[in-house]
Amino acid sequence: MGGTNTAFGLVDARGTVLASSSIKTAKHADINDYIAELHEAIMRLVEENNAVDKINGIGIGAPNACYYTGVIADGVNLPWPTPIPLADLITEKFGIPCVITNDANAAAIGEMTYGVARGMKDFIMITLGTGVGSGIVINGQVVYGHDGFAGELGHVIMKRTNGRMCGCGRSGCLEAYCSATGVARTAREFLEIRTEDSLLRNIPIDEITSKDVYDCAVQDDKLAKEIFEYTGTILGEALADFCTFSSPEAFVLFGGLTKSGELIMKPVREAYEKNVMTCFKGKAKIVLSEMKESDAAVLGASALGWEVKNPD
Amino acid sequence: MGGTNTAFGLVDARGTVLASSSIKTAKHADINDYIAELHEAIMRLVEENNAVDKINGIGIGAPNACYYTGVIADGVNLPWPTPIPLADLITEKFGIPCVITNDANAAAIGEMTYGVARGMKDFIMITLGTGVGSGIVINGQVVYGHDGFAGELGHVIMKRTNGRMCGCGRSGCLEAYCSATGVARTAREFLEIRTEDSLLRNIPIDEITSKDVYDCAVQDDKLAKEIFEYTGTILGEALADFCTFSSPEAFVLFGGLTKSGELIMKPVREAYEKNVMTCFKGKAKIVLSEMKESDAAVLGASALGWEVKNPD
Repeated sequence: MGGTNTAFGLVDARGTVLASSSIKTAKHADINDYIAELHEAIMRLVEENNAVDKINGIGIGAPNACYYTGVIADGVNLPWPTPIPLADLITEKFGIPCVITNDANAAAIGEMTYGVARGMKDFIMITLGTGVGSGIVINGQVVYGHDGFAGELGHVIMKRTNGRMCGCGRSGCLEAYCSATGVARTAREFLEIRTEDSLLRNIPIDEITSKDVYDCAVQDDKLAKEIFEYTGTILGEALADFCTFSSPEAFVLFGGLTKSGELIMKPVREAYEKNVMTCFKGKAKIVLSEMKESDAAVLGASALGWEVKNPD
Repeated sequence: MGGTNTAFGLVDARGTVLASSSIKTAKHADINDYIAELHEAIMRLVEENNAVDKINGIGIGAPNACYYTGVIADGVNLPWPTPIPLADLITEKFGIPCVITNDANAAAIGEMTYGVARGMKDFIMITLGTGVGSGIVINGQVVYGHDGFAGELGHVIMKRTNGRMCGCGRSGCLEAYCSATGVARTAREFLEIRTEDSLLRNIPIDEITSKDVYDCAVQDDKLAKEIFEYTGTILGEALADFCTFSSPEAFVLFGGLTKSGELIMKPVREAYEKNVMTCFKGKAKIVLSEMKESDAAVLGASALGWEVKNPD
């Protein structure tokens, strides 16, 4: 469930997405109308797939969603007043138990159940999209923390002086540098303070996206490649710090920016090995998610659905 | 078990230290002679307290000790070649199962079992001594990580440019600022770049300790108080970052520096509230350990001893 679209699907115990579809999240001013449309669309899928009475649970990945309370907390880009008791609203409408968590935690559960983290008990998932999210798994369990909102590693401070303003209201956060929007900001900064030529100068500066930076970098544009190096270096430094916390078996990177492949992964690995404590050197792997991005949201949320406790 | 002394004690299930004593760690060139002396000293205590055949397990807090393998890893200030299979050596000599972990993790277990963190499932213990250590508890379990060495929060980088050299070989670590030695370094730095008068100028600059800074601060010395503000601010900024990771119920501070009380706690709390993400504001408590420092090492290690699996 994102600010724009709500994707949903039917998933079996093997992790096969049997069917999927989506609706617009922001079409209805009243959340009950949204849930009614969602119910209708999902029940259609369920009936078409002869799955009536076969649904064990509903898992939802949603922004600011609290696993413990089933409530979407304040400060989120959704068209309805918060807090929203989403899990209760869904359970009531569908008559099926529902568990919710934030998107990055859902992605981590998906990765652990169906992806590259199968069999791992300790890993950290970093989602590199419009923002930077994280899902932390320790001893085989997602870390929710005391209040249910743990795992906000996109908001660790990487620059304590002259840091960029972040959407969270503070400055210097990892997210302000290593998200897709962070890459675009770096591009604008570099273009303004540098004088050298670059293919990026052919694009109106306020319209540059991370995709443009990628397109120029693969054409061997020096400045565009430097932008990825700058981004990857900060991310590698951050992962080195995260290692001191939970010493994971792996960092799993996921999301749009990872499509840049070695352009970003090489500086990430180099900065990580350069900055990590000696006792951790060469231990944790830094890998890319194996989940298809189109399925990942649905798979991750569905894996959460297996956790629901059905009344005996 | 520290580089200088090894303290040990008999602890009952209620957390009463029935008897305790210590030996010098570094007296013997051969670790087997050290263990023989330790065995003799401990068995004397056991016999004096009519506890023969009543010992359930042995827990040891030691530097670089790995919970999973029972081995003390390389890079540690002990007089014997590493790695040291300490748990096996002790179990063999005593005929009693032994579990080891690092000092800060043992302190966290002690705090959870007998101290201010009783009943807490999510907290972070920060030990402020010669160095800065940490023990992280999530879902009621100490975080050991994939390799057994997680929880090195003293080595999170707080200054990425012009950071102080740290004993770990890198620079800018929390430990280089917020340990007792860090406070003494800050004092020397401040005295060199400032010109104002201070009681600290009565002490030869290379001999200043954190205790001297405390003694001057309680006499209302402005520079000495500023040193604690500087130290506490960096620690508060660090705790705000740690919150994004595991959103704990509390941070428990322990060790020599905490004796400075509000001199350090006030700037810690202020910097924490100023720097923590909005969604975490006002949630986690920052509290002082309730363990008597003289008992803490023995109590923490003994609490670990309850975890040993006795053969059925």
